[in-house]
Amino acid sequence: MDFESFFKSEIDGLHQEGRYRVFADLKRQRGEFPKALRHTGEGAGEVTVWCSNDYLGMGQHPAVTEAMKQAIDECGAGAGGTRNISGTNHYHVLLERELADLHGKEAALLFTSGYVSNWAALGTLCSRIPGVIVFSDAGNHASMIEGIRHSKCQRVIFQHNSVDDLRAKLMAADPAAPKLIAFESVYSMDGDIAPIKEICDLADEFGAMTYLDEVHAVGMYGPRGGGIAEREGLMDRLTLIEGTLGKAFGVMGGYVAASAALCDFLRSFASGFIFTTALPPALAAGALASIRHLKASNGERFAHQSRVRRLRHCLDKNGIPHLANPSHIVPVIVGDAAKCKWISDLLLDNWGIYVQPINYPTVPKKTERLRITPTPLHTDADIDHLVGALHALWSRCALARAVA
Amino acid sequence: MDFESFFKSEIDGLHQEGRYRVFADLKRQRGEFPKALRHTGEGAGEVTVWCSNDYLGMGQHPAVTEAMKQAIDECGAGAGGTRNISGTNHYHVLLERELADLHGKEAALLFTSGYVSNWAALGTLCSRIPGVIVFSDAGNHASMIEGIRHSKCQRVIFQHNSVDDLRAKLMAADPAAPKLIAFESVYSMDGDIAPIKEICDLADEFGAMTYLDEVHAVGMYGPRGGGIAEREGLMDRLTLIEGTLGKAFGVMGGYVAASAALCDFLRSFASGFIFTTALPPALAAGALASIRHLKASNGERFAHQSRVRRLRHCLDKNGIPHLANPSHIVPVIVGDAAKCKWISDLLLDNWGIYVQPINYPTVPKKTERLRITPTPLHTDADIDHLVGALHALWSRCALARAVA
Repeated sequence: MDFESFFKSEIDGLHQEGRYRVFADLKRQRGEFPKALRHTGEGAGEVTVWCSNDYLGMGQHPAVTEAMKQAIDECGAGAGGTRNISGTNHYHVLLERELADLHGKEAALLFTSGYVSNWAALGTLCSRIPGVIVFSDAGNHASMIEGIRHSKCQRVIFQHNSVDDLRAKLMAADPAAPKLIAFESVYSMDGDIAPIKEICDLADEFGAMTYLDEVHAVGMYGPRGGGIAEREGLMDRLTLIEGTLGKAFGVMGGYVAASAALCDFLRSFASGFIFTTALPPALAAGALASIRHLKASNGERFAHQSRVRRLRHCLDKNGIPHLANPSHIVPVIVGDAAKCKWISDLLLDNWGIYVQPINYPTVPKKTERLRITPTPLHTDADIDHLVGALHALWSRCALARAVA
Repeated sequence: MDFESFFKSEIDGLHQEGRYRVFADLKRQRGEFPKALRHTGEGAGEVTVWCSNDYLGMGQHPAVTEAMKQAIDECGAGAGGTRNISGTNHYHVLLERELADLHGKEAALLFTSGYVSNWAALGTLCSRIPGVIVFSDAGNHASMIEGIRHSKCQRVIFQHNSVDDLRAKLMAADPAAPKLIAFESVYSMDGDIAPIKEICDLADEFGAMTYLDEVHAVGMYGPRGGGIAEREGLMDRLTLIEGTLGKAFGVMGGYVAASAALCDFLRSFASGFIFTTALPPALAAGALASIRHLKASNGERFAHQSRVRRLRHCLDKNGIPHLANPSHIVPVIVGDAAKCKWISDLLLDNWGIYVQPINYPTVPKKTERLRITPTPLHTDADIDHLVGALHALWSRCALARAVA
C-alpha cells in the first residue's frame, strides 16, 4: 500500500467537503485578554478572541500566574514520572483535596486532561463493572463516547436531555444489570443544560450510578464554582462529577470527584491514569490558586453572566439569530459550512475578530455555527464591534435574520 | 448493585495480592535534584530520588524554567482552547517545527502526553487504514496496546525484539493487506533496545509502515538527542517516530514526527488530538528550550552514561544482581512482590533513598524489581550510599547475590 498517497487522499477529501481545519496561530497576551497576537505569513496583528474556553479569563489572573511561577521556582518544570513512580508532587495532593472539597466528595483524582479523565474513567468503569449497561446521552462529548466504546460494554443511547426516553430505556433493560447514566451538565455546542435532578431521580429509582461531566460549568456556576450541580444543590446525588482545569480555571488537566473507594478504584485500574507522566507541579499549583480564588469570589461569575446577557441583547436588536439557552455559550447558527468559514475568515481579516467556525462532525450538518463565548473581560466596545461586524456580514451574505 | 462495595472489594483484592500502590508524596526541589522533600503524616524529610524519568535533570535546567516563566509572563497560564478553537499558541507552532527538525521529518504534531500520542496516533491509523494488520512487539507500552485495541483492527503480537518471529508473522499474513509494525527503541522496564535496522529491513521487504516509540531515548541518544534511531542513522527509514516531552526533556507532552501528510492526517482525524485543550504555552516554551539545549549540548548525555557505568560497576563489585542492557536503565531484580515493596520501604525510611518498587502488572510476576535511573546529577557519594544500602539489605534479606 502507498501509505503517503492514502493520507493525502484522505486530506483531499476534507478539502472537498469544506471541512479541512486551519488553525489560527495565536500568541495570547497576558494582561490583554481577550486580545491576542495572530501570526500569519506576513507578520503578526492583534485580534479579539471570541471563542476561548478560558471563560473567565483566569488564564491571566495574577493569583494563577504567580502561583505557577512560584511552583517553577520551587519544584522546576515537570513532575518527572508517573504518579506512582516519583511523579506525585505535593501540589497534586493539595489540589485533589481542594477538588474533593469543591464538589463535596470524599476524594478526587487528577488526570492529564478532561479528555483523558472521561476516556479513562468511563473506559475503566464500563469495562470492570461486570455486566454494566451504560445509558449515554446522545449529545455526550467525544471523550465520553470513546471511553464507553473502548470498554466494549453494552451501551444504550438516550435522546438528548430526554428524561422520558431515558426512563423508557431504563425500564426496557435487564433489572438485574448494574447501570450507569453518563451525561453532561452544560453541553458545549448548544449551551443547553441537562435536567440533572430528574436524571438523579431516575437513577435512584433504577439503582443506577450517575456520571456527570461538568467541564463547561465548573468555576462558572454555583456559589463556589462547583458547577450546575452545586447551584441546584444536587452534588451529593451524583456518584461521580468530572471536571476540567483547562476551561474556566484557565490552566490544563482533568479530574473526577467521587467517593474515596471509587477514586481509589480508578487510581488503581485506569490505564490512562497509571501509565502517564503526572501534571507538572506548576499546573497543579496554578489550578489550585484558581479554584481557591473562584471558591471565594463571585465577581467573575456575575460579570460573565452580565456580558452574556448584553451580547444576547445586542444580537437580538440587530436580528442576528442565536440559539436560546440558559448558559454562557452563544451559538450563532449559520447553517452552511462554506458560509460559516467565509464569515469567520472575513471577521478575522477585516474586523480583527476571531471566532473559529464550528462545522461537521463537531456539530450536525446544516447547523454550522459561530460559537461565541463572552468573558468578563470583553468590553461594551468589544461587543458593539462584534455585533456591528456580524450585522454588516449578515446583510452582505443575505443570511436569514431572526424575527425581533 | 452496591457499587461502593464493589469498588471496595476490588481494592481489597489488590491489598491481598500485595500490589496496592501507595504514592510517595514528594516536593521536588529545583536546584537540588535528585533530592526532594517527602511529605508524610509526620512532616517532610529529604530523600534522594533514584527512579525519576527526568533522566537528565532538565526539569530544573535554568534554560527550561526561565523559558516557562517568561512564557507565563507573556501568554498567561493555559492555552484557552483546543488547537482548532483558539488554543494554538505560537509556541506550539515553533515547537512542532523544532521536533520535525530533531527527527529529520517534514512535520511533527503535539499531543497532551506521550500516552495520548500513542493511543491517539495508533488508534487513528489502525482504525482508518482499511484492512490494516498491526504487528506489535510483545513488550509494547500500555498506551500503544490501548490504541491498537481501541481501533479493533487485526493485530499480530510478535515475540519481543525477535526479528525471526516478526518475519514469520509477516510472511504468514495476507500479502495484499496494508501492514504497520509498532515497536519501541528502549524498553522501559528491561532497558533493552530493539533491532531497529533489521525491523526496517523487514518493513521494506513486506511494504509495511513503521511506528517507533522513542520516549525512553529522545534527548539521551544521538548527537542531537534525536534518540536511538538518530544514533544509528535510521531516522529516515521510519515512517513515524513518537516521543515525549515529559522524560529527558523534563516537561510534559507527547508528539509524533513524520511526513507532512501523515501529521496532517492525524491532526484532522485523531479524536484524542482534536477534542482536548492544547498544552499550556509555558509547557511548549519549556520543551522548546530543552530540546534546543540538548540539540547543541552533549554534556548531559556523556555525564548520564558515565553515571550509569559507575552505578553498574559498584553494583557488580557488591554482588547486587542487575539486568545487563545497553541503555541507561538499571533494573535490580528482586523477584518477589512483598520483598520488593519491603526493600523499597526500608530504603525510604532508613536510608532516605526513594526507588519505587515495580510489581505486576507493570512487569511479569517473579520479576519484581527496583528500576533505578541514574542521572547526571547523582554524585559519587549518592551512588556509594545507594549501593551501601542495597548491600546491607541484600545481606539482611538473604537475597541471591550475583556471581562476580
